[in-house]
Amino acid sequence: MRSNIETPDTGLAAALQARIDGKTKPPGSLGRLEALALQLGLIQNTLEPRLTRPHILVCAGDHGAARAGVSAYPQDVTWQMVENFLAGGAAINVLARAAGMALTVVDAGVNHDFGARPGLIDAKVAPGTANYLEGPAMSAAQRDAALAHGEKIVRALADDGCNVLGFGEMGIGNTASASLITHCLTGAPLAVCVGRGTGLDDAGLERKRALLSQALPRFTGAHDDALAVLAHFGGFEIAMLAGAMQAAARRRMLLLIDGFIVTAALLVAARLSPAILDYCVFAHRSDEAGHAVQLEHLGAEPLLQLGMRLGEGTGAALAYPLVASAAAFLDEMASFESAGVSNRE
Amino acid sequence: MRSNIETPDTGLAAALQARIDGKTKPPGSLGRLEALALQLGLIQNTLEPRLTRPHILVCAGDHGAARAGVSAYPQDVTWQMVENFLAGGAAINVLARAAGMALTVVDAGVNHDFGARPGLIDAKVAPGTANYLEGPAMSAAQRDAALAHGEKIVRALADDGCNVLGFGEMGIGNTASASLITHCLTGAPLAVCVGRGTGLDDAGLERKRALLSQALPRFTGAHDDALAVLAHFGGFEIAMLAGAMQAAARRRMLLLIDGFIVTAALLVAARLSPAILDYCVFAHRSDEAGHAVQLEHLGAEPLLQLGMRLGEGTGAALAYPLVASAAAFLDEMASFESAGVSNRE
Repeated sequence: MRSNIETPDTGLAAALQARIDGKTKPPGSLGRLEALALQLGLIQNTLEPRLTRPHILVCAGDHGAARAGVSAYPQDVTWQMVENFLAGGAAINVLARAAGMALTVVDAGVNHDFGARPGLIDAKVAPGTANYLEGPAMSAAQRDAALAHGEKIVRALADDGCNVLGFGEMGIGNTASASLITHCLTGAPLAVCVGRGTGLDDAGLERKRALLSQALPRFTGAHDDALAVLAHFGGFEIAMLAGAMQAAARRRMLLLIDGFIVTAALLVAARLSPAILDYCVFAHRSDEAGHAVQLEHLGAEPLLQLGMRLGEGTGAALAYPLVASAAAFLDEMASFESAGVSNRE
Repeated sequence: MRSNIETPDTGLAAALQARIDGKTKPPGSLGRLEALALQLGLIQNTLEPRLTRPHILVCAGDHGAARAGVSAYPQDVTWQMVENFLAGGAAINVLARAAGMALTVVDAGVNHDFGARPGLIDAKVAPGTANYLEGPAMSAAQRDAALAHGEKIVRALADDGCNVLGFGEMGIGNTASASLITHCLTGAPLAVCVGRGTGLDDAGLERKRALLSQALPRFTGAHDDALAVLAHFGGFEIAMLAGAMQAAARRRMLLLIDGFIVTAALLVAARLSPAILDYCVFAHRSDEAGHAVQLEHLGAEPLLQLGMRLGEGTGAALAYPLVASAAAFLDEMASFESAGVSNRE
């Protein structure tokens, strides 16, 4: 399961930087757009990178622990929101459309029988995970199936020409799962990894912290064993995203990393293959408490900070136009030479 | 010249908020997008606001003080960049295209004879301002002509159906002009209002500060007399933008405010009509030093912070997709009721 993600070759770095600096603007004045253009050129190993068939991949799954009361919403909201995705009425539908991105929705393990449905990929590992308050959320075989499903879905997207992929999720209870994973893989205290999720009040947050403190000692594996942590606490959607991310980097896509749950999946993937981080753009700094812990651990600074905490890949969809603008300026802007503009004195 | 901009009616505020809260997401979870949707609904005084014919308006002008050495670039770059705008090769061309915005370029007072050119509005007040190191940059009549030109251009855009307008500028030396205006209208020390502009080194910054300190005492008017300050230190492009902004708010447009120079124009407009601020969205926190002073004075928090310092309206073009996404979620997202999704327990 340890994947062979390679660090992008940096042979073109100087030539890319010269191309960026030759554009008709003061050096560095496009700020982070310049760093994005450089990153994209290195990933695609070309002076003329292009973004093609941008996609958002949303994986949905249910959590056995949800019934213990770790969320402000009932578990049925997971499948109801998947129906909302399929009907085109959720936030990610609207924001992906606005950004010109296609949307792929995956049933990674929702506790509901959707039947065969246009627009929904059936990759259901099981109808929800087991409750980690009682034992492991999934078996090693289920985890590996989820990872493999994620890889397979992304390989198909890559074969269709997609080279930029945003990741999103849906799953009532999945901030709790992400909190436990984040605690184990970053070493930060559990309390600072636990937040209000979809909007718990103070008493709800207190209960969530207490429940997760009870869950923690039931995991007897090593805290830095990402695959063991994933199996014990993970949701199927989180495991599938971790597999999807690895395949995306292997296929040299640009990965748009959304908020807290998606970054928990990345913590797993990055533990297996640190080079994956060279392919990542962090989209949005979530208001969910534990996201700051993850970002600090990864040394990451998201492009946006808009006070959102919705998930679904909404941050990735909002950040995509910035990435597209970075590719566009590198491709379309005139140089001082071509435009006949005087450079600095 | 004192304009009759009215504060938007807030009668629909509660109904707009209820519409926002009824969407299939936890309350508040779309963060600043929710505030944008509310602002847009109030400006348009409807529960179903729409953004139509988005535009960037770039005003260009030359500065008599530029030859004294306040910029890292020669004055000819102003007209050369206008040519670059007309040829479609500048950053703002690329970013406006990427955002789906039209671009209008105005010669407010460039020291160059462009002749009649498709795509360029000739509103030249004079071929550059006078040097404020020696006397007023422009006469009261020139200032009023620039303000009136700006208003007229925006009225034509409004008549064509534009209701969202980003503002940009080009003018070698105009960060110096903006620094003096910012000092006078905010009361902040001149030194903190002066920055590196297009990229002065330490010695250049020192010289710029010294020159502007010499220029300051030549203005004998009241520092809070915005029109007097504008005439003495302003560029024609800054005056035209101030007029354009007032007309835009009067026509109930949403105003996308870019960086340091554009915000200097807004300081003038807001001194004349404080209600203009209700129509403004601040696009990007510039790396130019004095922008922070302006934003603090106005109590404004831009949507983006990407380390840019290019001007031209580039921040406004990058912020537009966020505003469009806010309008889209309000228009297109399902409600809990319509989607059959369970609300909080």
